[in-house]
Order: sequence, then structure tokens, then C-alpha cells
Amino acid sequence: MLKSGLLTTVVIASLGSLTFATSLPETDLVWSLLAGGLAFLIPAGFTLLASGGMSEEKAVPTAMMGLAATGLALAGYLACGFALQFGGIGLVSDLPGLGGLIWEWSPLDATWGTGWGALGLKGFFLQEGADTPMAYALFFSQLPLVVTASLIPLLTLTKRAKAFVLVLGALLIAAVVYPIVGNWAWGGGWLANLGLNLELGHGFIDFAGSGMVHLLGGVTALGGILALGLRSENRQEPAKMPPVHLPLLAILGALLLLIGWLGLVFSSPLYVSNEGLSRALIAVNVVTAASGSLLVAMLYAWFTTGGADVLMAARGLAAGLIAISAACPFVPPWTALVIGAVAGLLLPLGIYLVEYLLRLDDPAAAIATHGLSGMWGLLALAIFADGRYGAGWNGIGAEEYLGIAGQGVSGYLVASGFQLGFPNQLFAQLTGIAAITIVAFALAWLFFKALDVLIKAMTKPALNPPTDG
Amino acid sequence: MLKSGLLTTVVIASLGSLTFATSLPETDLVWSLLAGGLAFLIPAGFTLLASGGMSEEKAVPTAMMGLAATGLALAGYLACGFALQFGGIGLVSDLPGLGGLIWEWSPLDATWGTGWGALGLKGFFLQEGADTPMAYALFFSQLPLVVTASLIPLLTLTKRAKAFVLVLGALLIAAVVYPIVGNWAWGGGWLANLGLNLELGHGFIDFAGSGMVHLLGGVTALGGILALGLRSENRQEPAKMPPVHLPLLAILGALLLLIGWLGLVFSSPLYVSNEGLSRALIAVNVVTAASGSLLVAMLYAWFTTGGADVLMAARGLAAGLIAISAACPFVPPWTALVIGAVAGLLLPLGIYLVEYLLRLDDPAAAIATHGLSGMWGLLALAIFADGRYGAGWNGIGAEEYLGIAGQGVSGYLVASGFQLGFPNQLFAQLTGIAAITIVAFALAWLFFKALDVLIKAMTKPALNPPTDG
Amino acid sequence: MLKSGLLTTVVIASLGSLTFATSLPETDLVWSLLAGGLAFLIPAGFTLLASGGMSEEKAVPTAMMGLAATGLALAGYLACGFALQFGGIGLVSDLPGLGGLIWEWSPLDATWGTGWGALGLKGFFLQEGADTPMAYALFFSQLPLVVTASLIPLLTLTKRAKAFVLVLGALLIAAVVYPIVGNWAWGGGWLANLGLNLELGHGFIDFAGSGMVHLLGGVTALGGILALGLRSENRQEPAKMPPVHLPLLAILGALLLLIGWLGLVFSSPLYVSNEGLSRALIAVNVVTAASGSLLVAMLYAWFTTGGADVLMAARGLAAGLIAISAACPFVPPWTALVIGAVAGLLLPLGIYLVEYLLRLDDPAAAIATHGLSGMWGLLALAIFADGRYGAGWNGIGAEEYLGIAGQGVSGYLVASGFQLGFPNQLFAQLTGIAAITIVAFALAWLFFKALDVLIKAMTKPALNPPTDG
Repeated sequence: MLKSGLLTTVVIASLGSLTFATSLPETDLVWSLLAGGLAFLIPAGFTLLASGGMSEEKAVPTAMMGLAATGLALAGYLACGFALQFGGIGLVSDLPGLGGLIWEWSPLDATWGTGWGALGLKGFFLQEGADTPMAYALFFSQLPLVVTASLIPLLTLTKRAKAFVLVLGALLIAAVVYPIVGNWAWGGGWLANLGLNLELGHGFIDFAGSGMVHLLGGVTALGGILALGLRSENRQEPAKMPPVHLPLLAILGALLLLIGWLGLVFSSPLYVSNEGLSRALIAVNVVTAASGSLLVAMLYAWFTTGGADVLMAARGLAAGLIAISAACPFVPPWTALVIGAVAGLLLPLGIYLVEYLLRLDDPAAAIATHGLSGMWGLLALAIFADGRYGAGWNGIGAEEYLGIAGQGVSGYLVASGFQLGFPNQLFAQLTGIAAITIVAFALAWLFFKALDVLIKAMTKPALNPPTDG
Repeated sequence: MLKSGLLTTVVIASLGSLTFATSLPETDLVWSLLAGGLAFLIPAGFTLLASGGMSEEKAVPTAMMGLAATGLALAGYLACGFALQFGGIGLVSDLPGLGGLIWEWSPLDATWGTGWGALGLKGFFLQEGADTPMAYALFFSQLPLVVTASLIPLLTLTKRAKAFVLVLGALLIAAVVYPIVGNWAWGGGWLANLGLNLELGHGFIDFAGSGMVHLLGGVTALGGILALGLRSENRQEPAKMPPVHLPLLAILGALLLLIGWLGLVFSSPLYVSNEGLSRALIAVNVVTAASGSLLVAMLYAWFTTGGADVLMAARGLAAGLIAISAACPFVPPWTALVIGAVAGLLLPLGIYLVEYLLRLDDPAAAIATHGLSGMWGLLALAIFADGRYGAGWNGIGAEEYLGIAGQGVSGYLVASGFQLGFPNQLFAQLTGIAAITIVAFALAWLFFKALDVLIKAMTKPALNPPTDG
Repeated sequence: MLKSGLLTTVVIASLGSLTFATSLPETDLVWSLLAGGLAFLIPAGFTLLASGGMSEEKAVPTAMMGLAATGLALAGYLACGFALQFGGIGLVSDLPGLGGLIWEWSPLDATWGTGWGALGLKGFFLQEGADTPMAYALFFSQLPLVVTASLIPLLTLTKRAKAFVLVLGALLIAAVVYPIVGNWAWGGGWLANLGLNLELGHGFIDFAGSGMVHLLGGVTALGGILALGLRSENRQEPAKMPPVHLPLLAILGALLLLIGWLGLVFSSPLYVSNEGLSRALIAVNVVTAASGSLLVAMLYAWFTTGGADVLMAARGLAAGLIAISAACPFVPPWTALVIGAVAGLLLPLGIYLVEYLLRLDDPAAAIATHGLSGMWGLLALAIFADGRYGAGWNGIGAEEYLGIAGQGVSGYLVASGFQLGFPNQLFAQLTGIAAITIVAFALAWLFFKALDVLIKAMTKPALNPPTDG
């Protein structure tokens, strides 16, 4: 029984709490679809990047997992995930065709007011209210993201767990984990409404998945690694260079990521007609951050090891893209360079922490690349958003914000003439980080631990004592 | 002498027999061009996928054939193919700039009425009536398709026939075979007019090439294989896993196919302004079918061999894309999942049939992947088209269809409120399948047989008895 | 002190000297951004193509250089290059948002008139006048070009010079060399104004980088090779086929180039609304030239060596793309086939010249592929431009040209009804070729020579006699 939390009766009250355009020309929809197609280079790129860094016997199974995740995530998100994430999007968006998706469940009593939604419940299998072109477009634009979120833990856990466990894990992420936090941040849920409800800046903001995809993916991987237990042997291995053909594929993967990202940031139909953004600035920031991160990671490896490290450079490019995703529409280009550079520094430090201090077995460097960069990207928004763009985001400040007409999403280093959005925006970002981390870690750890125990229990009857793997 | 079949005098009568927009903003043309550029990932993807499944000594020659086919098909289609396919398109389309392409030859007397066109005869070398932006755009949008059709047989016949035979074969396909059936289905020829002339539903429908490209390519490959003779040796070989680097390229190829397909379905300027379609539904169906096919093929291999089969999974993804091409604008997403799943099941069964029962030498699995999936896709349209989209397609039912206003392309499982389009649409599809199969098989078999005989005759004078290869 | 050359006072006089649209819908800007994203496949493709042709021990460092160049070029162009290239673009364009970029330095006294600009001086770090969406878009559209220009010499000089020398070289190209000639041709400088000032046709024209990127890159590579000294050993090496996996990546690289180029030609916001061009013709010419060049290079290798040469075919495709870049909007498709075919013939002849006659060490074939094809492309425009398109280009002939209303860019083989633009357009192209060659060679030779001498001087104090490398 869902008690009192259904928001179907409060449609009008919450309309306009996100800044979505009223009408959307079909032409605009087409380029959002093309951009979404290009964004499928992202899972392809991560698959190549991860396989390229593996030892020879793990490269193919890892790439196979990347391919499998593509199929699994699509199926899981079609059947269930989309409904959980966007089942209530019609409550906050007035885009044509989303009017049927108005079932958002909230754990809080209606007296708390609207905007505490925690889960959508409409549109399973893209039926019942989700059979409109706009809902199809919204579904489609999420696919590269949900596939990526699913494959991050798979790429690093290949061969650590049985294949069917990983397959089920990918389904779980696409059907449940990603949609839950996705609902909170993008589907009209409580994280997006932290601004309206608690006056925390513009509420939690993650434009293109720093948190929703990469922090989530990195934390999920961490949960899986911890649940499956530490391994102490072959610790020297990672220092060895992999054979010749794999670095080339890793480099290709990194370059494909860059191109895919330039599609991703234009793929959401929710932002297609948002006139408060500069699309050119978004594109510039994406490449600038990638460049800064690549250079710092490359130079760090150069100065510490005396030579070029292909994997570090390639992962550096990825880290910059991940870090800039949250804030790319809201910061000026020179800060994108800084955000990227910091991500490029955090990457080798994070890998050192994970590999040598914590001694975790993370061959695809999911924790450092995805988790750390994603978290930094969410925080960076609260520092560098300069107030020029995003007025009205998450329903905050369409007319004026902090007393300034036209001020948009703001952090600490605002442009002249604007008011500091600090520390309120930071609190919103920290709340989001905590929420994502807790949900993703808990679900992942429980899932992998439960299946691990189950499998060991089932293999016990055999006379031999239980062994790992 | 072309007797009485020239349709140049019946322009007005046949206008409107296809649903094309009157005006087309330049902006729309640009994204059709961008989408067409992205669609060149398809021949690139198939080249990687085929090479990745080859033994080491065949991988490079096969990829080289993929590259050569790109150049050959473009040249052949420029010189001759476009004119044969679209030389009469001006008779059925009122798009600006196609008015000069009005020479469609028909074998039937004019008393049979219009719509029995079999071949266009204008626009060779993109001159004379084909020197307009719209004709250029139409030409360009066909290139990824014609390149793909040409390389399908090449990829599987590499090393079976001499290189110059394959090169001539690719030219033949691009300049003659593909354009002939392409005229029938897309250039205003008789297959498209089966609805108008014989009341077979909306006439033969193949939105993005299930039949025109893949059934044609698969059947052409079959014709070549049979003409060149069976080989009985090294039958055990295919079971061996290829060396490590090739599976990664096969996986990359499959993922590039997915992205290319998302460009392909938006690349035709003929459908750019068609308001009867939902472009978002098309994109969703493409990825959904790919997912379903990938999963079923992967699971089939898993259950039958006990392990993951990279090639089967990668080809599975391709099979789903091929199968959904015909019907993607006309079916709801859950049926796209079914269409893909069936394609994913037909694939291993087809490979077993070809490899072990028929003992044909088809190393790129062209017959099972392209031929079988393409045929299934054409049939699936007649089953799953639900009537919601495509009103007025091929000149049928712009006002009402089967007595229902607004009903579009319909098969057996129509949405509630619509009338069954079964079995008439099925008859149209079966007619198309028969026509493509007969033309493609006959031309391919004759060509390869004739050259095989010729070469053997020319090598006879040497004292040694003639040998294969 | 910049004496008298500042053109900030002559804004009005020079307005309209380039044909730019007054208004630009945001929608159009988006597809220029998407096209620009796709164009990043070009540096990725060249990286694969070059690595694929290397010996095993050079493949990975070469690819690493390709990755590094991406980061370096972006940083250098952001900090300095954009300001040098487009700091005065506001003087010649009336696109909204470029009005702040009006500082163009000229070495000539103001009495010479306007249009002798040689360097922009505004917009460093995308600040001060360059912080508008349109300036961001213009910056972004140059990135694939500047990255490509930077990596051409790096790909061929890897392992010849120390890594930090190459890194500095890439920065120099992106921050200074490319922007200087870029200013002259595209930023409102003197090469573009050769038509207005000296009546040389439409002034120097290079639509998409035959000269600005590839002639420049090839000449820079030549300068570096000569500065670093000839090597006489291991001259037999290049004839040996590289190991199996590399040709596949070279082929993939070539196919990615084709797709990237189809983005590149649509990526510049300066031409987005230019109604005097046919975008479909541009796309058709790009693929047609690629096809012609691929076929000729492939057949040449076939006839001379008796077998397929993967690298020659792949580089042939690239050469065709490079050659058609300058003239793709201005020539009919059949001449694009000719332009490509000539490029495909020049390629093996050029490689023979460089490798066997001049005995230069150019493992990525930068001189023949980029330099020669680029130069040919610039000349080809003066031969094949047929007058149908580009009226008003570089401020010439918006009303009439050579007495014919509506005549556009014209060379020797004009369409019927138009006047010959020969030899004036040829003189403009030759002037541009000379300017690019001199600047690029001088700066590259001086840079690599100076650092070479410096490094040898610094390593002298060690007792051993100085040695190379």
C-alpha cells in the first residue's frame, strides 16, 4: 500500500518546478535523437578503454561484458527502469506528450507539500501514458547513460564474479538503482526540489551524469569489490605494460568517448528548447575539461615514472569528461580547464589510494576514474558556477535569484554583478552525493554479498571445502 | 526500343502515390546529411565484424575488401546506379528539385495504367536533371546502403574468388542489382505500388533496408557461394576461437553498427518532413530490437556451449538491427523486442543450417545474418504493424484506410480501434521477398558462374588440369 | 608598439567583405556543434591510420602522440590561438556575438586601405569579447582542425625528437602557426581579401582546410624532418608488411576519417546560414573524391606490386578527402571524382619521391598524404570551380561577377553561361600556397633546429661526444 504519497492530485501545484519549454518543434527532437545516437559511443568507448587496460586473458571477457551490458540495460530499463525514473515527470514538465506520466510516489505525508517524490510508477514497457513520441524521446535519451552506469561495475568485476551474477547485476542497475536516483535528480524527485523545499540553491544539479552515472557506477563497483572480498595475490601485475595492440584500442576508446560526450550533452529532449543555456559553451567546456585532465594526468605519469603512460592519459581524458558533466552549462571555459586539471590530478592519486593503500582489486580503475571524478564534478559546480546561465533551473529564480534579475545557477566564483550562491548550492550537491553513495553502495553490496553467499551455500554439498571463484 | 512503357506523360496521374512533403526547409536537409554521414559507420561496422570473425590470414584481406567496396560502390552508383533507381522519382514525389527525374521505364503497356515502372533512366553521373541539391541529397542518403549491399557478399567471398572478380561483383551490385530492386521499392516502381494497383495493403514496405540491402546482400552471397562450388575440407575450423585481438574489433564493429543505424533511419530526405511518423519511436525500436536479438543470441550460445560466444553476440546485435529496419516506424516498442528476439534465435539456427546441414562456406555468416534476418524483418512488418503510423504511405489511405480515418500501415496485431491489415500486407511483403530473392540470386549466380567458367577456360591452355581457386 | 595597423576604426568600411548571415537560429547552431563533434573523428582517424602503418615498437608511442596532441592543441588554441586567428573577425562578420572581436593588426599603413590584416589580438582565453555563444561556437568549430594540424607532424616525428620537443611543437602549431595563416584565410586577413584588394578572383579560398590544415601540416612535418637531419640506415624496412592487427586499425581509421569529414564540412557557424551553397553537393563531393582517390591509389598499388596494399588504399581515401576540402562547395560531382583520382595518383608518386628519391624519413607519409594532396586541392579549385555556387564569397560578386549576375566562385571549367575565372583565381590560390608554405616551413624548421642545437649543447658537458637522439 502506498500511503498518501501519490502526487497525482497535485499536478497543477508542481507545474513549472522545472524549466521546460512548452512547445518543441519536431526538428529539435530530431537532433536530440541524433545526438543520443552519437552518445552510444560512450559505452563503446569505455568498453575499449577498460579492455585495453586488461591483461590479455581478461580483455575479451571484459569487452564481452560491455556488449552484454548494452543489451541487458536496454531491456531492464524498458521493462521497469523508465517507469520508476520518469513515471511522474508529467507533474513537473509541461512538454507535450508527457501528460500521462503523473504517478510519483512519496514516502512523506502530503502535508509536507509537493516535491518529495521518491519513485515514479507509470510507463512500464513504455505503455500506459508512455506511448507518445516525447516519452519515446525521453526514454531514448537515457539509454547511453543507463548502459554506461550498468557496465562500469561489470567492466571491473569481470572474472571476479560468475557471469550470470554480473548479468543480473547489470539488470538490477538498469531496472532499479539508476532509475531511483535518476528519479530524484531528473524525474522530478526530492533532490531536484531541494531548492524549492529547503532553499538549497537551485537544488541538486547534475546536468549530464557526473553523479547519476559515474559516481553511481564507481560506488556500485566499490560495493561489488568489497562484497566479493579482497584478493592479496598478484599485486605487482598492474605495473606491467599490456601487449601492443591493447593500448591502441584504449586510445581509440578515449577519443570515441570525447565524441560521444559531445552527443550526450545535446541528447536530452528536456533541455532541447531551454533558452537559458548556451549550447556552444557546453561543447567548449566538455572538450576543455577533457584537455585539462588529459594533460595533467599525462604529465603526472611522465614526472613520476619518467615515461608516457598510455592508460593514464586515456583515463585522464575520461576523468575530465566525467568531472565536467555536472556543471558544463554553468561555468566559464577557463574554469572547465581547472575542473579538468583537478580531475586529472585526482585520478592517479585515486588509483594509488585504491591499488596500493586500500589494496582493492579494481582493474578498470572504476573507483578512481568514475567515482572520484564524478564526485568532484558535483562539488565543482558549487564552486565554479558563475551565475550567467540556468535561470529558472529546477524551478528556482526564473525571474530573479538572490535579488538579481537573470542570475542563474551560482556557486562561489560568480561573475561580477552576481551574488554568491555559496554555501547553499554546495549543501544541495553534498546531499546528492550522500544520497547516491548510500543507495548505490547499499544495493550493490547487498546484491553481490547475497549472491556470493548463496552460491557458496549451493556449492557446499560437494565434498570439497568451498573455494572462491 | 522501349515500347510504350515511358511514363513521362503520366506525371500528374501518379503524383501523390508516395507521401512526400511539398516543401523541405534547408535545415531539415542538413540533419538528413549528418545522419547519412553517421550511417557510414554501418559498412565500417560490418567490415570489423566480419574481419573479427575470420582466421588470422583472412582478416586483413577481408577488411581490405570492405575498404575497396566503399570506393567501388560509390563510383558504380554515381555512374549508373542512381539513374536506374531514381530516374523516375519525379513522377511520384513532389519534393523540390526532383522534377527533372521523370523517365521511368515499364515493361507493360500503358493500358495497364501507371505504377508498373521497373527501371529509371535519367540522372547518369548526377547530370541531366540530377544536378539539384535535392537529387544530391537523395543520392547521398543511399550511399551507406549501397556500400553495405556491395560489401556483404565480398566479406564472405574473400579468397574464394579472385580479387578482380569480387571487385567487378561489387560494381555490378552497386550499379545494377541494388538499383533495380531499389527502383521497385523506393524509386516509384511496381513493388511500392502493389497497394494502389492490386490492393495489397500499403504495397511493399521496407523502411530502411531489411530487404533492399540485407536480404539482397545475403542472397547475392548465397548465389556467389553456390556458383563457386562447395568446399568440403576444413569443416572443423569455425569452432575454434580466433586470436585475442579480433573479438575486440568484432565487438567494436557491432557497437558502431548500432550508432550507424541510428543515423541511417533519419538519413533519407524523402521522409524528412513526413509528419505521419514518430522519429523517436523509430530510434527506440532500433535499439530495442538490437537489444532483444543480442540477448537471445548470447543466451542461446551460453546454454548450448556453456560459455559466452563473442561472435554470436555481436552478430546477434547486427541481426536485430537488420530485422527491425523494415518496420521500425510502424510497430510499438514491445514488438520491436519480439522482432529482435526472433532474429536472435533465427541467427544461430541459420548458421547451423548453413554450416552443418547445407555445408556452405560462409565465413562471415552473410546468409544467416543478413539474408535470414532481412527476410524475417519484411515478414514481421505484416504481423506487427499496429496501424498508428504511416497513413498515406505509398499513396494508400491518406484520408482513411480500411474504413478507419487515420489508420496507417497495418498488419495482424493492430492497436485497438483499427482494422486488421492481414493478410493483404503479408502478400505485398511476400511478393517483395520473392522479387528480391529471384533477381539477386539470378544475377549473382550468373555473374560468378560466368566468370568462374571464363577464368577456367582461360587458364586451360596451361598443361595442368584446371583447379579451383 | 603596433604602429597604425589597428583596424578597429574601420569597422563599417569592411563590414560585408565576407558573406555572413545576419541572424542565425539557435537550432542551426546546434547542428553545427553536432557536426563539429563528429569531426573529432578526424584526429582519431589519422592517429589510427598513422599508428597502423608503423612498425610494432613505434605504433603505441605514435598513438600516444595523437592523444597528447588532442590535449595540447586545445589548450594552446584556447590560451592564445583563437585570439590570434579571430581577434578581428568582428570587422568582417555581422554574426551576432562577434561584435567584440575587432582588433586586427596589419603591418601596412592605413593608407593602403583595409583588408591587409595579418593577426588578431583579442579574445585570449575566450575572455574579453570572446565570451559569447557565437564566439564559443566559432572556437569549437576550429578544434578538430587545429588538433589535426598539430598532430600531423607529431605522428611522423615520433621517436625522431624527444617527447618534450614534440609536445612544445604541438603547442606552437596550435597557439601560433595555425592561427596566423588561419587569420589570413578565415579570420578576415589579407589572403581572403586578395579579391577585394588585388582583383584576384574571390581571393584565396580554402573551404575546409586543404591548405590551412593539411598543406600546413605536411610542410611543418617537412621542416621538422629536415631540421632533425636525414637518416640513411634501415631504408628497406618500409616495404615489409606490418603485423596483422595494425592494418585493420588503419582501415578503421580511414573509414572514420570519411565520417568525420562529413561532420567537418558542416561544422563552421560562419557558413551555417549561407544560402549560396548546396550542403548536399558538399556531402556528395566529399565522398566522391574519397572514392576516386581510394580506387586510383589501390589500383596503382595493385598494378605496380601485384597485390593489394592496405596502407596505400587507406591513405588514398585520406588523400581524396584532403584534396576536396578546399573546393567541395564549388565543383560538380564528376570533377570531385577527378580531383580525388589525381590525389590518388599523386600519393604513391609523392611517397616514392619522398622515400626513395629525397630519402626523407617520413613514416606516416605526412608530406605526400597531407602536403601534396592539400596543395593539389587548393589548385584544383582554380581549375574546376564552375561558377554555380559561392556568389558573394569573400565579399566578391554578391550582385554579379565578371558581368554575370549570380556567378559564384569560378575557375577554368565553368558551367555554360558563366565567364572564365581563370587565371585570376589561380593567382590567389598560388599566393596562398606560397604564404602557407613559407610561414609553416620557416617556423617549423627554426623551432626544431633551435631545440636540436640547444639539446646538443646542453648534453655536451658530459664527457662523451654528442650523439643524435
